[in-house]
Amino acid sequence: MNKLKPRSKTWIEFDEEVVFGAGRAALFQAIEETGSIRQAANKLGMSYRAAWGKIKATEERLGIRLVEKYAGGLQSGAVLTPQAKELMEIFQQFKKDSEASVDELFIRHFNKFFSS
Amino acid sequence: MNKLKPRSKTWIEFDEEVVFGAGRAALFQAIEETGSIRQAANKLGMSYRAAWGKIKATEERLGIRLVEKYAGGLQSGAVLTPQAKELMEIFQQFKKDSEASVDELFIRHFNKFFSS
Repeated sequence: MNKLKPRSKTWIEFDEEVVFGAGRAALFQAIEETGSIRQAANKLGMSYRAAWGKIKATEERLGIRLVEKYAGGLQSGAVLTPQAKELMEIFQQFKKDSEASVDELFIRHFNKFFSS
Repeated sequence: MNKLKPRSKTWIEFDEEVVFGAGRAALFQAIEETGSIRQAANKLGMSYRAAWGKIKATEERLGIRLVEKYAGGLQSGAVLTPQAKELMEIFQQFKKDSEASVDELFIRHFNKFFSS
């Protein structure tokens, strides 16, 4: 059983549509790192339009502002709101705990089957 | 938070390759119901070759015989071995418990965030 591993993927839906998951978390992370939706989208190989659509969809479904765009003289960019940072943190913890729980359940259920 | 729902998908890998998951479980279920690999493959919209490849891959990675083909005078077909039935049962229970655990973790982690 040593090479057998449980894998899991968790995400959050609202009315059967994805609200937040690993992909959305990566997008938000990239916005935090680059300070720009366009650069974040490039980094993840998606169009600006697709990235913006995902951000708006998540904001609308949750009713929470997550990304603030700003335009200055020489600078323009985007920053995550405190709520977005909190959402990311909670999601990572939720994901980590879910994986740990699945690992434990895997051993509990399959240990006997695979060692027989 | 009432319309927000956690979703999860769990599967088992061996050396980074899928050994068993919802797709494999559906294939085995269809073989049990139809008594035929070809009919099971049709039912799931896959080729006989693809279905047989998945069965062999799972058998080889686990080192367990899961499907027995037989050929008779008027009849030929396939049946699941007792080990395959046990694997399906354990996987369903593992999947169900994993989902229940993810549901619980979702509430524990997100309840405060979404009610604020």
